[in-house]
Amino acid sequence: MNRNPELEPSPDVQADAPRGRRWEAIATALRDDIVSGRIAPGERLPNEATLAARFEVNRHTLRQAVQALVREGHLRVVHGSGTYVRELVLDYALQRRTRMSENVAQAGERAKRELLSHERAKAGEWAGPLKVPAGSEVEILHTRASIRGRPVGICTAAYPCPRLSGMAEAFKAGGVITQALKDLGVADYVRVRSTISTRLPTPAEADALARPVTQPVLVVQYVNADLDGKPVEAATTLFAADAVQLTVESDGEVS
Amino acid sequence: MNRNPELEPSPDVQADAPRGRRWEAIATALRDDIVSGRIAPGERLPNEATLAARFEVNRHTLRQAVQALVREGHLRVVHGSGTYVRELVLDYALQRRTRMSENVAQAGERAKRELLSHERAKAGEWAGPLKVPAGSEVEILHTRASIRGRPVGICTAAYPCPRLSGMAEAFKAGGVITQALKDLGVADYVRVRSTISTRLPTPAEADALARPVTQPVLVVQYVNADLDGKPVEAATTLFAADAVQLTVESDGEVS
Repeated sequence: MNRNPELEPSPDVQADAPRGRRWEAIATALRDDIVSGRIAPGERLPNEATLAARFEVNRHTLRQAVQALVREGHLRVVHGSGTYVRELVLDYALQRRTRMSENVAQAGERAKRELLSHERAKAGEWAGPLKVPAGSEVEILHTRASIRGRPVGICTAAYPCPRLSGMAEAFKAGGVITQALKDLGVADYVRVRSTISTRLPTPAEADALARPVTQPVLVVQYVNADLDGKPVEAATTLFAADAVQLTVESDGEVS
Repeated sequence: MNRNPELEPSPDVQADAPRGRRWEAIATALRDDIVSGRIAPGERLPNEATLAARFEVNRHTLRQAVQALVREGHLRVVHGSGTYVRELVLDYALQRRTRMSENVAQAGERAKRELLSHERAKAGEWAGPLKVPAGSEVEILHTRASIRGRPVGICTAAYPCPRLSGMAEAFKAGGVITQALKDLGVADYVRVRSTISTRLPTPAEADALARPVTQPVLVVQYVNADLDGKPVEAATTLFAADAVQLTVESDGEVS
């Protein structure tokens, strides 16, 4: 150990952690800094000497932690320049068959979508896009998508009842909307329409996205319908501007 | 005249304007407030009595000015509620044949697109999207689109030279990109790809859009190609978030 008696012990790392686990504790501390946004995407890490001093370890131990985060995709090494927090830019394709799970998988990233909360409510504002009576009921799911532990989007989606009662339970089983719809009898669906706008997030939205309220969000409102044209999902997704860009490719042949 | 000696003469309106033109001067002052954003879209005008006092005119004269702005589309009257500055939300369709001129015309709005500046430059960053050598030349046009006098978007577009040399001159003639391309031999073109992101504008961008730097912009980067698939235009458009939303409809049949 290359302890420097001038520095206070770092609160991030247990000084009495077993020697073999020190690098894991450092990796955890750095990972927390990245996932929480305290170190921003694209930012360069302090140099090895500075970090080794901060964590009170030698460079070899520090390097083990950094290498673990490179393997996990949180950091990338630019030779001759330094170690950077990886930019998180997901190309999200808006097309006839738009699937969040596929968009994320195509980016080759470790992603998950979690259920934050759900409720049953009168259709209200969702009645129009879902083409159901305003007094009928919908099941509403609030979900959050994360890549490498960092939130990239939050989604509020409404499903018509009684046809799709039980979406929350079905979603919990696998964490994929497409599979949940399939389990409830919707074999396939297509994107009818997407509307894209932007605004600053509310404090609650910024909090859920782990972003500052000064960073704008992309707002995508959309409707998905089954192959008979009946809407099965109406939703609003907020994407973090530093993590996601939307793409629209022309499907049509050039003729 | 219902002059109120307690109030200072309004600096907005020439007190010595001919009586018959007072309402026009008031309309001009209110229009300036709206176009500059000093009265925001969706905001309610102060009531008639307040405005009449501000401009030192009777209600009849004030009403003439308001009616003119209603006819021009700047204001709308909600019966039993008040007079509001019209929201400026343009649905901008991203599709295979995307035309700013058509998108704006479909909104039924008085729009114009003006050339701010233009230059000839090495292709550089445009070489990739235009599929031309980096050392070849492009003509770059900086334009601004406005509806009812209020900016809604600014665009930087690059055209490959020598094929499309003269775009600036051709655009000046009619103010429509599609026509300028036609004049230079591009009979038709299609949108290859659009990428949509969001960020806060730079001070210069915010200034050109007449918006605060705290209001995010929608950033659309796109490529248009002729019917042989050769790129004819690569561009970046910034849309004001309060004025434009993008729509993506599925062209495909539900099958």
